[in-house]
Amino acid sequence: MESCIFCKIINGEIPSYKIYEDEHVFVILDMNPVTAGHFLVLPKKHFEMPESTDDEIISKMIIIAKRIAKNIKRILNSDGFNITTNSGEAAGQTISHTHFHVVQRFKNDNLKLWPPNENEKNKIKETYKKIISNI
Amino acid sequence: MESCIFCKIINGEIPSYKIYEDEHVFVILDMNPVTAGHFLVLPKKHFEMPESTDDEIISKMIIIAKRIAKNIKRILNSDGFNITTNSGEAAGQTISHTHFHVVQRFKNDNLKLWPPNENEKNKIKETYKKIISNI
Repeated sequence: MESCIFCKIINGEIPSYKIYEDEHVFVILDMNPVTAGHFLVLPKKHFEMPESTDDEIISKMIIIAKRIAKNIKRILNSDGFNITTNSGEAAGQTISHTHFHVVQRFKNDNLKLWPPNENEKNKIKETYKKIISNI
Repeated sequence: MESCIFCKIINGEIPSYKIYEDEHVFVILDMNPVTAGHFLVLPKKHFEMPESTDDEIISKMIIIAKRIAKNIKRILNSDGFNITTNSGEAAGQTISHTHFHVVQRFKNDNLKLWPPNENEKNKIKETYKKIISNI
């Protein structure tokens, strides 16, 4: 898409720290890394959201994400990693071109996962009924 | 695996709020939800980590994750969602059976993504060289 920054990176119009490329997938370092080695897995074709990304393409993305995550874990001697994709502005998606973030994790990096919500925990049966009767 | 809590849930030894099942994948509500509708996508076969999960199986997992995420977004009228998998204890993986978390997001839910690290940003060229020469 013409105005999409990730499409411009994939087309070479904007430089990037590219670490991998194949027919369908493009992998770069995130220019605003949460930790060392934070990279992004992009489909070459423009899809706006994870849920609108072709099954075949999102499959290739997750396979490449886990493979490269493991390699970078070895190279940077990290202790683990998170693979995340965000759908929608409320979820932190700032660029409307599907992407996975892969963040290497280090003991004592002080990054915290979101805590459970006690109020939601108490209502889980109610939520379940709502979901299961409408899915 | 005998002692694995997710294997026990899949086998029916431990009850769960199951929302989907097919030949390879099992989907349940997380009993400690971060927000309403927080669910987990599990492979039926026991794989310890994302990176040791078969390509075919992790592909099925991400396809089901995005599909059900979209359905639950509609049902619960959320504003977006995150799909995440954690590898290793340092990354927040508490159960050694690969799984995706899917967390529905709501405007004003006050959940924050991790911020960029200025120190790592300044060293990105150095990190890139290290990665690209070892990958």
